[in-house]
Amino acid sequence: MRAEVVSIGTELLLGQIVDSNSAWIGEQLALAGIDCNYQTKVGDNVGRMVSALRAALARNEAVIVTGGLGPTQDDVTREALAELTGAELRRDPEIEDAIRAMFASLGRPMPESNLRQADVPEGASPIPQRRGTAPGLIVPVGRKVVYAVPGVPHEMKEMLERAVLPDLRLRALARNEAAFIASRVLRTWGTSEAGLGELLAPRYEALAGTGTTIAFLASGIEGLKVRITAKAGSEPEAREAVAAEESRVRAVLGEVIFGSDEETMEVAVGALLESFGLSIAVAESLTGGLAASRLVAVPGASTWFKGGVVAYDSSVKRSLLRVAEGVPVVSAESALAMAEGVRSVFGSSIGLSTTGVAGPTEQDGQPVGTVFVGLAGIGAGGSDSEVAELRLPGDRERVRQYATITALDLLRRRLFAAGVV
Amino acid sequence: MRAEVVSIGTELLLGQIVDSNSAWIGEQLALAGIDCNYQTKVGDNVGRMVSALRAALARNEAVIVTGGLGPTQDDVTREALAELTGAELRRDPEIEDAIRAMFASLGRPMPESNLRQADVPEGASPIPQRRGTAPGLIVPVGRKVVYAVPGVPHEMKEMLERAVLPDLRLRALARNEAAFIASRVLRTWGTSEAGLGELLAPRYEALAGTGTTIAFLASGIEGLKVRITAKAGSEPEAREAVAAEESRVRAVLGEVIFGSDEETMEVAVGALLESFGLSIAVAESLTGGLAASRLVAVPGASTWFKGGVVAYDSSVKRSLLRVAEGVPVVSAESALAMAEGVRSVFGSSIGLSTTGVAGPTEQDGQPVGTVFVGLAGIGAGGSDSEVAELRLPGDRERVRQYATITALDLLRRRLFAAGVV
Repeated sequence: MRAEVVSIGTELLLGQIVDSNSAWIGEQLALAGIDCNYQTKVGDNVGRMVSALRAALARNEAVIVTGGLGPTQDDVTREALAELTGAELRRDPEIEDAIRAMFASLGRPMPESNLRQADVPEGASPIPQRRGTAPGLIVPVGRKVVYAVPGVPHEMKEMLERAVLPDLRLRALARNEAAFIASRVLRTWGTSEAGLGELLAPRYEALAGTGTTIAFLASGIEGLKVRITAKAGSEPEAREAVAAEESRVRAVLGEVIFGSDEETMEVAVGALLESFGLSIAVAESLTGGLAASRLVAVPGASTWFKGGVVAYDSSVKRSLLRVAEGVPVVSAESALAMAEGVRSVFGSSIGLSTTGVAGPTEQDGQPVGTVFVGLAGIGAGGSDSEVAELRLPGDRERVRQYATITALDLLRRRLFAAGVV
Repeated sequence: MRAEVVSIGTELLLGQIVDSNSAWIGEQLALAGIDCNYQTKVGDNVGRMVSALRAALARNEAVIVTGGLGPTQDDVTREALAELTGAELRRDPEIEDAIRAMFASLGRPMPESNLRQADVPEGASPIPQRRGTAPGLIVPVGRKVVYAVPGVPHEMKEMLERAVLPDLRLRALARNEAAFIASRVLRTWGTSEAGLGELLAPRYEALAGTGTTIAFLASGIEGLKVRITAKAGSEPEAREAVAAEESRVRAVLGEVIFGSDEETMEVAVGALLESFGLSIAVAESLTGGLAASRLVAVPGASTWFKGGVVAYDSSVKRSLLRVAEGVPVVSAESALAMAEGVRSVFGSSIGLSTTGVAGPTEQDGQPVGTVFVGLAGIGAGGSDSEVAELRLPGDRERVRQYATITALDLLRRRLFAAGVV
């Protein structure tokens, strides 16, 4: 069973609005076991809409159209559906009454054009509205079907869940094509996309032809994601297949994995700190508050996050964090002194620091992308402190972002190792 | 001249990522006077990609493909382009050298699969990469053309601006179909979208039927944008129309406008500080480093940004920033003491502070969304300090983000007023 999403609106093509509706619908279709191979955006133009709908119907059993059901002259989805099926538009008296009643209940005058929303192509069934005035439509086209739902996201979602997905599931059952999907995202840091690909190549090949797949997704500072998806005849089977593959992938990747699904790096770090009863303070130079703001974003951070110092001016590193005179600002020694300094100022169990060259130009004889991360209170192999030297690619903003997640990841690995010992 | 955007990636269809690339490209095409009537998403599948590309070429003179140029097995845009044109893939030795050199410069081993990125369909020209490893491609198809660019947004944008848009403009000129568009975005903070709409309603009406338009765009913490666009027969005419309208809009909105085009709030604040020879330090509670990290992101920040303290734990507010015992953490008095404290610790001309309740629960008897912003060293009406009390809507993350930009905006307005006096 295949369904295509067609999003309507010239504003989508002009980039005034990002079409997030189709992404959401795609996710729902995947979870319902319905294949979605194409998604299309087209402007408010009857001819082009009909052409997009014909193409979509030719390669799918179902089409979901979102948008163009509003009351203004540029909302022409109803007209396009009538032209597609060669039907006349008829004004539905029940919908007309409902629209009039809605305006009356709000005590507002009703612009006449609103009644266009009561127009239904002959042969189609309206989907009643529960939140706005535009009803949806179910339009049979031979043995296939087009669903039209509003473009307003919360109206679209309510109608899709209430009317469209159940109808699609029934159709899939009738075609003996109902499938169950489960998925799991594993988040990693510390290996390139190609590197992950090589590590997992044997799994990738072993899965060929089974209902389970692995995909990679570079997500910037959210890490590199590995998504495991399984399709099976029942929900428990699909879940079991994902769980089995997850343990194989975890065995291969080990501590490169920092979290699963929505778990961010800062959430992973926070959970480890909390479970060990440790607290942290951060001293940031080039990352300038990024590490602190990511940590503060974790709900409940107040139990383990003490605070931070943004030591951007060199003199602050010396006065507040007690980095000795003569120590270059961008150096391993400075990173270590900053971590120890901030740990002492805030009285935390652990101090984490960053210093480096974000660019645009080199500093202290160090090239752009050179970053030192200092840890005080925990270190490699059970030692009490550690400094890591990084060479990060990219422009100023990326160097700062990557330095932040890499610093948090270093702390995560040390905490993890401490817990394992 | 018509161009279609085809976004590649199964993750887009599954809703794991919202396809914002096509929206951005659509905006650039509109500004270049090129019509974009369709945008399509298709998964990592050669057959379906070829079918989508054929359909796009049938109804357009140009197609821009984004995504699927990565090094892993599921990146098959190169293969699809080869199949589309019936060409062989050849490994380009220059690109191969560039990829090897990039890995060498980062001191990292190169996975062999990365060399797939050096494969070029015969007859196509590579677009050199400046930020990653995947080059783009220009693929002539008869008198039409397909451009392939990476899916990573910053790589895509750089390549589109440098290579694709100039090539498209030349093609439009050759077809005698070039239109000239100019535009200007004015960024505002401090007025609602409906409020802006009311203020600018007379301009909106006066422009009806001319080639110039005004549009509003809510952009979260980047402010509410007012976009002026003019279409004309020549570039100078288009620019002149935009400039004329810009001065009318500026006359209406005044200091609500903080910047234009890509100028962020922090850039505006930094420019004012620099022009007055002033420096700043920030003390942040609920914003937890967001204000510092936005300021550090401005190139050249080191001349006016001293640093900051993230005082998340209450005891830090008292020990480091000298907020007196007994003063509630979320209060005007505390905000002022924090601003004065950080100014003194860092020896800066100005201290800026935030304290408040980001949620999820109330604190110090103050409801979620209550925020105090403190300013030391500059204040309303020429005074030396000031506290503003805000009531912000939204969840934890939005309260923190809105508190940050509102604090920076308060400083901007005071600096602006000081400069005018």
